[in-house]
Amino acid sequence: MTKNTKVNAAILIIGNEILSGRTQDTNTSTIALWLNSIGVRVDEVRVIPDIEDTIISTVNHLRKDNDYVFTTGGIGPTHDDITALSISKAFNLQYEIHKEAFKILEAYYKQGEFNEGRQKMVWMPKNSKLILNPTSGAPGFYVENVFCLPGVPSILKSMLGGLKNEIVGGKPILSHTISLRTVESEIAKSLTDVQKNNNKGEIGSYPFFQAGKLGVSIVIRSDDQSIIDKCVSEILFFINEKKIKIVER
Amino acid sequence: MTKNTKVNAAILIIGNEILSGRTQDTNTSTIALWLNSIGVRVDEVRVIPDIEDTIISTVNHLRKDNDYVFTTGGIGPTHDDITALSISKAFNLQYEIHKEAFKILEAYYKQGEFNEGRQKMVWMPKNSKLILNPTSGAPGFYVENVFCLPGVPSILKSMLGGLKNEIVGGKPILSHTISLRTVESEIAKSLTDVQKNNNKGEIGSYPFFQAGKLGVSIVIRSDDQSIIDKCVSEILFFINEKKIKIVER
Repeated sequence: MTKNTKVNAAILIIGNEILSGRTQDTNTSTIALWLNSIGVRVDEVRVIPDIEDTIISTVNHLRKDNDYVFTTGGIGPTHDDITALSISKAFNLQYEIHKEAFKILEAYYKQGEFNEGRQKMVWMPKNSKLILNPTSGAPGFYVENVFCLPGVPSILKSMLGGLKNEIVGGKPILSHTISLRTVESEIAKSLTDVQKNNNKGEIGSYPFFQAGKLGVSIVIRSDDQSIIDKCVSEILFFINEKKIKIVER
Repeated sequence: MTKNTKVNAAILIIGNEILSGRTQDTNTSTIALWLNSIGVRVDEVRVIPDIEDTIISTVNHLRKDNDYVFTTGGIGPTHDDITALSISKAFNLQYEIHKEAFKILEAYYKQGEFNEGRQKMVWMPKNSKLILNPTSGAPGFYVENVFCLPGVPSILKSMLGGLKNEIVGGKPILSHTISLRTVESEIAKSLTDVQKNNNKGEIGSYPFFQAGKLGVSIVIRSDDQSIIDKCVSEILFFINEKKIKIVER
C-alpha cells in the first residue's frame, strides 16, 4: 500500500446497549476523527447485538471490503463479552490464553486479585497481536486487519495512540468548515454549482440550531488542500453576493 | 402481525458528517428508545455515506430483513440530500412532486419564499405517505416499511409522535437497571449463572466511571416483567452475599 492509495475502514460497534438506545455511542466519532487524521476514511459503521453468529458474519464481510476494521465492545470479563471468541471463530483460529496478555494482567493486579473473571480477558484468538491499554490494563488485540477495542470511551481513546504505527494510511483527509447565518434553501442552488465545478471535493451542508438561531455549516473535504481552497473561494464569492453573514470560517 | 409477534427494525443513518466524525449521531438512541416503548426491537444500525448506489442497495437489503426501516438524513434542499431520489430508485417508483407536501410547504412559507431550493423537499417517491413535521414544515415520508426522517435531531424527535399509529409493535420491551459500586470481574461469574438460569431474559453488564469512581450497571431486558423480576431477585441475592454497594436500582 503506497502513501497515495485511498485507504478505507469500517467500524463495528458490538453491543445491545447501543441498539436499545440506553447508551449513546461516542466511539464512532472518536475513531473516525483519529483515522481521518492519519489518512483513513470510514466508509461504513454498523451496530450489531452481542450474538456470536452475527459478529462472525459481519466481521467476515467487513474485513474483505475494507483495509481496516475496528470493533468496539465485548472484550470485558462478563458473559456478554463474546467478541474475542467470535473473532477467533471468524478467522478459524484457536481461542486460547494469550501469554503476553496474561503476564501484563498478572503484573497489573495485586496478588490474589487476578481472579477467574479477569482471566477471561486474556483469552484471545491464537497469535493475536496486543493493543496496549494505558488506562485499565486489559489489552485489546488485532488479527490481520481487524482491531478489537473496548467499549468504554475513555479507555478506547487512551488506546488509539499506541496503534498509530500499525495503521498505514493515505494522505490525511482535510476539511474546512464555513458556518453561516442562513437556511439551506437560500444557498442550495449556488452550492450545487460549486459542487458541480469541483467534483473532486466533497461538499456537505448541515443545518444547525444554536442559541435559538438557525444556521448552516458548509463542510468541504478532500485530501488536496488546493481543491478545498478553490471551493472555499467560490463559496465565499456567492455568500458575499447574497450578503449572508458568516458566523465562523 | 399480532401483538405477540417479535417485531424488529433497522436504523439507517445516511450522512458523510457522521462517518467523518464531525457530527455525533444521537438519532439512533432517540429512535431506539421510542421503538422499544412501542414494542419494536432494533436489531441493526448502519451508517453509510451520501452515495446513491450504497443507499439503494442498503435499503433494499434492510427492508427485507426487518419489519421496519428508519432512515435519517438527506431529505433537505441541498445537493447532498439524495435520500428521496435513492428511495424512489430502490422501490422502482417515479420521483415526483408530492402534491400534499407541496400544499403544506406553500402554506408554511410566506409568499415568494417557497423557492426552488425549498421545492426540492417536496420531491418524493410516487404515492409516498407523509410524516408530518411540527417543527419546520418539511415532511418526511414513508414507502411500505421504510420511514424517512430528517437528520436534525430536534426535528426528528418532534416527528416521531405522529408516527405512533403507523407502527404495529409487539409487547413493549421492558428493562431494569441495577448500578453497583464494583468492577465487572467481581460479579462476572455470579452474573453468568443468573443468565444461564434465565435464558429468556437478556442481561447486560456495563462498566462506568462517574465522579472518578468505578461502577457497573447491570441491565435486564425482556418483554416479560416476571422474567425481569426473577433475574433482579437472583442478582440482589448475590450482591447482598458479596456485600457490594448498590448505587441505584
